[in-house]
Parts: sequence; C-alpha cells; structure tokens
Amino acid sequence: MNRLLAVSTTIVAGLLLAGGTSVGAADLQPVPKMTDQEYKDAQFIYFDRCSGCHGALRKGATGKNITPDNTRKKTLAALEKILYEGTDGGMPGWGKDGFMTRAETDLMARFVQNEVPEPPEWNMKDMKKSWKVHVPVADRPTSPPKGKNWQNYFGVVLRDAGKVAIIDGDTKKTLNIIDSGFATHILRTSASGRYMYAIGRDGKATMMDMWADPPDLVAEVRTGIDARSIDTSKFKGFEDKYAVVGDYWPPHYVILEGDTLKPLKIVGTRGYTYDTNEYRDETRVASIVASHNAPEWILTLKETGVVLLVDYSRMEDGTITETKINAERFLHDGGWDSTKRYFLVAANARDTISVIDTVERKLVANIITGTKPHPGRGANWVDPEFGRVWATVHLGEGLVSIISTDPTKDYAWTVVREWELGGNSLFIKTHPNSTNVYCDNTINQEKSHVLTVFDINKPDALPREITFKKKVVHMEFNKDGDEVWVSLWDKDGEVVILDDKTLKEKARVKGLYTPTGKFNVYNTMNDIY
Amino acid sequence: MNRLLAVSTTIVAGLLLAGGTSVGAADLQPVPKMTDQEYKDAQFIYFDRCSGCHGALRKGATGKNITPDNTRKKTLAALEKILYEGTDGGMPGWGKDGFMTRAETDLMARFVQNEVPEPPEWNMKDMKKSWKVHVPVADRPTSPPKGKNWQNYFGVVLRDAGKVAIIDGDTKKTLNIIDSGFATHILRTSASGRYMYAIGRDGKATMMDMWADPPDLVAEVRTGIDARSIDTSKFKGFEDKYAVVGDYWPPHYVILEGDTLKPLKIVGTRGYTYDTNEYRDETRVASIVASHNAPEWILTLKETGVVLLVDYSRMEDGTITETKINAERFLHDGGWDSTKRYFLVAANARDTISVIDTVERKLVANIITGTKPHPGRGANWVDPEFGRVWATVHLGEGLVSIISTDPTKDYAWTVVREWELGGNSLFIKTHPNSTNVYCDNTINQEKSHVLTVFDINKPDALPREITFKKKVVHMEFNKDGDEVWVSLWDKDGEVVILDDKTLKEKARVKGLYTPTGKFNVYNTMNDIY
Repeated sequence: MNRLLAVSTTIVAGLLLAGGTSVGAADLQPVPKMTDQEYKDAQFIYFDRCSGCHGALRKGATGKNITPDNTRKKTLAALEKILYEGTDGGMPGWGKDGFMTRAETDLMARFVQNEVPEPPEWNMKDMKKSWKVHVPVADRPTSPPKGKNWQNYFGVVLRDAGKVAIIDGDTKKTLNIIDSGFATHILRTSASGRYMYAIGRDGKATMMDMWADPPDLVAEVRTGIDARSIDTSKFKGFEDKYAVVGDYWPPHYVILEGDTLKPLKIVGTRGYTYDTNEYRDETRVASIVASHNAPEWILTLKETGVVLLVDYSRMEDGTITETKINAERFLHDGGWDSTKRYFLVAANARDTISVIDTVERKLVANIITGTKPHPGRGANWVDPEFGRVWATVHLGEGLVSIISTDPTKDYAWTVVREWELGGNSLFIKTHPNSTNVYCDNTINQEKSHVLTVFDINKPDALPREITFKKKVVHMEFNKDGDEVWVSLWDKDGEVVILDDKTLKEKARVKGLYTPTGKFNVYNTMNDIY
Repeated sequence: MNRLLAVSTTIVAGLLLAGGTSVGAADLQPVPKMTDQEYKDAQFIYFDRCSGCHGALRKGATGKNITPDNTRKKTLAALEKILYEGTDGGMPGWGKDGFMTRAETDLMARFVQNEVPEPPEWNMKDMKKSWKVHVPVADRPTSPPKGKNWQNYFGVVLRDAGKVAIIDGDTKKTLNIIDSGFATHILRTSASGRYMYAIGRDGKATMMDMWADPPDLVAEVRTGIDARSIDTSKFKGFEDKYAVVGDYWPPHYVILEGDTLKPLKIVGTRGYTYDTNEYRDETRVASIVASHNAPEWILTLKETGVVLLVDYSRMEDGTITETKINAERFLHDGGWDSTKRYFLVAANARDTISVIDTVERKLVANIITGTKPHPGRGANWVDPEFGRVWATVHLGEGLVSIISTDPTKDYAWTVVREWELGGNSLFIKTHPNSTNVYCDNTINQEKSHVLTVFDINKPDALPREITFKKKVVHMEFNKDGDEVWVSLWDKDGEVVILDDKTLKEKARVKGLYTPTGKFNVYNTMNDIY
C-alpha cells in the first residue's frame, strides 16, 4: 500500500468498518434453538399478528422495538408471558384472547430472540407475473345494471376468509362473494364508483366491477409482501384512470392502471425520519387518500413521519412529483375534513393527529389527543357550539377527541370537545344526514359487544349503548344516510342494519365469515364520512 | 396453528422465505481466506479504486457486477490478471499503471471473492458530530479584499493531497493551500462567488471564504462515507443560502446551511430503476447542477436512471418537492447548455447523453454518442454550420460528440458533428470568448501527455496537439476567457497557463501536489463552460 493510502486508511477505513461494530453480548439470554419448520411457522405468525405494530424488521412503530438485542434481555418465560397475557402498554394477550395456543406463544418467544429474517424484495417482474385480468375491459358491461341502485351497493370485508361480499343496499341481498387478498384490509372505489378495489395484508390488490351482474372480480395483482392501503385517481380528467397501493413491505407504492390493475410504476419510500434524520430501511406506507382538488394522492409514511403529496398528472411519461411534508412519526390512518381540503391523520404512537392543508401544501398542526388515536378515516359533523369538527377514537383508551376543522375559528385545529367512551375503539362514523355519531368498542374485552351512539345536538348528554351478542366492529351508512350498517365480527358473522333515526334494527345480513369493514359505493367514491 | 393460518401458510410464507433462496454453489471457486487486517486493507483499496465504477455493494454501474456469485466463477489467477493488466472493456490495469503492487492485486482478487461488507449508515447525528465552523460568520470580512480581482481566483484540486490551492488568476500567485476531503473530487461556488465549496471522496464537504485574505477554510462537515457532488442555491432570493451534497454512500443528499455547512436535512435516494422497476439499495447521487431559473437543484441518480428536480424554496419549514424524471441508467456527469435551460448528462454505461428540459420539466432526448461519454460539465459553443452546440468526450474511445442544443432546429438533440480525438479522455472545455475547444487525453497511455485543441471555426481541420512532459488533465478558463489553465497531474505537478489566442505558455504555477480540476470563481458561479 503506498504512502498516501496508508495515511488515509485510518480516517476512511474506520468509517467503512463502523458497520461491523457489535454490541457487547454480556447479560443477554442465549439464542434459543428452532427447527427450520418452527422458524418458518413462526415467520408466518409474526407476519400475521406481530409485524403490523412491530414492523417486519422488528424495529418498532406502534409497538416496541423487539430485535434480539432487546428481546434477549428478557427470559423466554417472561416473553412467553407477555405474548400470552398481553401488557398494559397495549400488547394484546394473544393466548388469553384465543388467537395463539401455548405452543404458539412459546414458539414466538423463541422466534423473537432469534435473528430477524430479511424480507425479500418484490419488483416489477414479480408483480407482472402475479397480474391477472379475469375480465378484459372489452368484455365488461358498457352501462350500469338495469334496475339496480348500484351506487348503494356495499362491499363488506370478510377479513379472515380473504373475501369481499357485495351486498345490495336496497334489497339487503348478498349479490356475490369474491376472492380478495389474505386478511383483506380495506376497500376503496374508483371516482365513478364503478370499480371497487380491495387490498389484502399479503399485498394482493383486487378489483371488482359493480356494473357486472352480479358484481365480480375483474383483475388482480400482487403488489408486495405486506400492504394496507389502496386508493384511486379522483381528480377531474383522471377519474378511474389509476389506482395506487401503499405497501408495508417492500416499502414502496405502486401505481396501477385503473381498469386492469396493470402495474405501471413502483416508487420507493425508504428514507430518513423527519425529526432526527435517521435512515429507516422499513418506511411503510400507512394510509392513502385521493384528492378531489388536484391530481394528487396523499400518502403517509409511518416510520419517518413524512406525508407525501404525490402528483400523478404526468404518469403518461412516467414522471411523478412528490412534495415531502414533515408531520409526525408513526403515521397510521386518517381522512378528509368535510371540505376535503384538510387531511387529518393519526401519528398513533405519538398520541397526535397531524393536519395537512392540501391547498397550501403544508402541515397546519400536530394536535395531541388521547392514547393512540385510531380514526379510520374519522367522522365529520357540525357541532352546535363549535361548528365544523372531525373526530377520532383511540386504541389506547375509551375517548372520542373532537377537533375543530374550521380555519376561521381561533380554536381551529384544537380539541374542542372530548367524549368518554366505554372502551378502546377502532372506528367512528357519522353522515351529513345523520345526527348520530357511532363508535365501536372493539378492543375492550368488556365492552366489545357494545355500539355507542352519541347525539351531535346533545353533546353533553350520555351516549346510548346498544349491546349485541357478538363483537361489534366498523359502521357505514347507506347512500341516503338513513341507515347505519354494523358488523358483528365472528366466524358466524352478520351485518346488522339499523334505522339511523330510531336505532331500531331494520334488517340483518347473515352467513358472513368474519365481516369487518363495509364500504358503501356512493359514500366511498365521494369520501363521505 | 389454526386452520386459516395453516391454509394461508403456503401462500404467504412462501413469499416470506423467498429472500432466503440461494443460488447453487456448484462450479464456484472456494472463498479464499483473508486475515482481518488483509480484509480491512482491501476494503480501503476497494473504496479508493474500485467502488466508483463497481459500487459499494459491487452490483456494478460503469463497471461490471463483481459480487462473489460472479467473481467466484473465475480463478484467483484470472482475477489477479484482470486487476493487474486491465481489460479492453475499460477496466484499468491497476498493477501495470503503477497504482497497485502485485501483493495488492492478489489481495484484491481474494477480496472480491469474499462476501461484500455492509457499509454503515451515516445519519444526522454523525454529521452534526463532524460539523466544524472554523470561522464564525460574524468574524468574517463584510466586504471583498481590497485591490484583489477575487472573482478571477482559481480553486485547484490537489487530489491525492486532499487539499485545494487558491491561486490568484491575475498574479498567478498561490494564495493558500487549504485542507479539504480525501481525494477531493470537485469544487463549486456560491451564487455570489464569495464561498467556494469542495467535496471529498470521503463525503467531507469544506467551504472556503474568497473574501478572506488569504482565502481560507471557514467550515467543514462529513456528509457520508463516499461522495462526488456538491452545489449551491443559485436562484434569486436564495443566493448563498444553501449548499447540497450528493453522496454515493449512504445513498442520499444532504442540504446544508450555505454559510456554515450546518446540516439541515437528509433526503434518501434509494429506489427503483426507471425502466425495469427493480429496487436498488445503492442508488448513488452522481451529479448536481443548480438552476438559475427556479429554486431547484437537478440531481442525477446513477443506478436507477432517474433525474430529480429538487425544489428547495420551502426548506424553511423542511418541505422538499422532488420531480422524478425517467432518463437513462448509469447517470454520471453533466452540465447546462448555454441557455441554462437544458441539462445534458451522461448515462455512461449506456453510451447515452440524456437531455432534461428544466422549464417543461421533462426528458427531451436520450442521444446515443460514443463509448462511455464523460463530459465533466461539457462545453458550449456556436458551430459555424449548426449553431448552438454542446459537446462531450468519452472514457471509452477518442471521440468528441457534438450535439445541437438549439430546439428550433430540426436536428436539435442529435449528434451533428464528431471529432476524432487522440485518446480516451476525461474533460473538454471552451469559453464564450474563445474559438478553441480543448480536450485532454488522460485515459490513453500513449496520448495522456497531449492537450488537443480544435478550432470552432474550422471544424473539419485537424486539431493542434500540445505535448507536455507530464500527464495532462482538466482545463479551465480565466474570468476574461483569454487564458486556459491546464493541470499536469503529477506528484510534482504544475498548472500551465496558455494564452488562448496564441496557445503560447504565459505562466506556470509549480509545486502543486497532484493538481486536477480547476475552478475559476466567476466562471463557476455563472456556470460558464
């Protein structure tokens, strides 16, 4: 090695080798043995139950960092207890709640003390291979089905079946049950409402044609290994043109042809945390909403706390413009205010709602709410005292936080009202034609069978509670806003339809396997919630 | 495991495990043994000599993919021969050319058959630690040095010394020799010209104050492990406000405070190839130019072939907007056309010049040139027949490709003229006041001492050749455009100053250790080349 190299070696090689530095192994528990089959089984359970909160790389988000350098500080017995019984910090009791056997919690305790497996990439080649058009565009109907009020159809996620039931909102008849991805997460519609899109936890996107009679699967594509979000192009001139999927792994979003799901472009999201500027290999796309006012999608990046405004207007030549707005870390779910100018999104592990102004293209506020807000898309109404508001429920406590969304008020973007709720909750819903606000209490063992109903015009009155025989989750209105549909989340599940005025049961759709989210075509295409 | 999980395991777990699939090891050479010290030494030599073309992860760019699954197809003897003697494909003969001993080429042959070490991240915390302000803003001069024509100062890179010489263009006196980063790559100036910035191959950015007497180092920061590019905010209202460094590793760019180098924001660049949409962990920032017409930098991403227009106008609130334009893979160096509307950049391993229109914000053309174009920033002049042109030389052959940059012509964005050049070359230069086009022949062993001079107005005439006693590299004009400065790249190096009209030697600056690139303050601040 010549002189100059030798001189510089100490400077540069030190850096090159910095990656190899390892933490002292003192006081760490030994790495438990696992067979190949056990490791493989554990990997799947981890994907299904753990990675949502802890991340594929186990570095934590909503849940804690559980890489081996942390987990090996605990004994196997201690880990197994946490897995079985849960914690006050929000870890579910997987054993206690009946989702894992003792053998499985033992398996998972050993797994999290073992090395983190590197998840594979998923590139265009893989997507193209998985892409199937079941009904070519030319073979589809050119007009809506006669005599059907198709805009009042509902897509109902049958979560653990990996299927979607399409139910006619007028007749309450199940028109079809359609295969979608594993543990289907959400549904969205195209701008016209004609197409309904599902995204599975396994990254599989499917699309269903509401004009077909009965509605049916027309295309599918696997966009990644793990995904949570999908939406479509809703701006004038781009209606029904594109869909977009946000993946958890690999960290990217994929732009798809709106009528065939043909994958057009993958854009990576790996980057740096907005605040400390640390690199995050796992930068998951948490939620997506489609702007009605610009050719844009709003995407939230969980680990880095960045909100992307993604302009798709130049997709014809493959150009994408991203405005990267600093918001808050651990972004999760969110929705529009009633004017569809402001996007409100939960940074759940930071107990915060971030508000993005999509016209001025900036963060308006980070609002501290209760513990781990989880709005779904939230709910918008007019409060008799405070005017326009948007509200969220919480994973971590029984609380509704009600935020003013009227920028002309001096209390805009603050919590103007709080309602105590029976239990920790997943979803909240109302409708412009309703004076009721509905909340589930799904995460609370004692209250999980209860639907809570607040009266917008009596904000200080105690809510009414309706108790069902099964776990209640997720509410959705019909097109006219005079019925609310409620899922009873069970293997022998049902959708209960209540009259919004009287709260009396109007009808019940039975024989649904684990129904969860419901999406009315009209309300979804118009983002009414 | 319950039934549903079991059913789905085959679908999802198959994907989860896909990353673990390994290629059959049949027919591969064994992994050669290395001591820790050998591996460490080899890592440094790799960084210094190999990674530029082959990449830190060895996946290839300008050079081939040399990960062990490829290198182990060859014997150690075959690899050592390539390392020592080079190849026709453009691999330098590191031994033959005197840069590596036999022991070192043997070492490197073994190294490339061993596993690729994972390079470390470099986050804000690391940058902040390395950040030093040597002269606070308050302690700096408030006016230019009296009696000095400071805009005619030159910064001269003393590459292997990791220093920059500041030479007065009027007096030809060396005013100061200032420490910069390891193997300093390029210099740029602020919009006002007052500050000159250097970027080292080790990611260290330094800034020098031209108003100090003598000019001196005022700040430094280490932005990464490996870097090549730096520029500054040149748009009206943002003059001297920001600097930006593009790193090779980690793959990111860093926005710095213009007068202190304080690191403000890191933006990751890892993403997908523009054409096949494959993920690239190593997505290096190759080159940067600063727009004079918008608050933007144009950054090129080597491995993915994407050009980023980065809007810095909202850095006050941490917002960055990136327009991602598909261009061509293996982007390297480039510069403006004479109107500073079009950016021309070499995709060298694709023998292509990509042209970006920064007003319409799109790719205008991919122009096939000769083998591995390497323009530096290129050279602009008015051809007597074709009007406005920009030209590049080539790493892979002795050729000047001359491209029409006049969009009103039907031959715009085509090669309108080719000049045969004695040797493979690194740089080309002219000036609006000159009728000469200067090319080095640095990469060609037989012609490396020759400076070739073409006459713009006699485009069909043979060029003149000026032979020096040492290797010639890089040319730069003085402010008035009547002198051309040429580096003799040697440990006992010199800068030779020629009269542009007569080609006679006017002066010589001696005692410079390995001088390479030279940057005249006025020409650099105004992007005159």
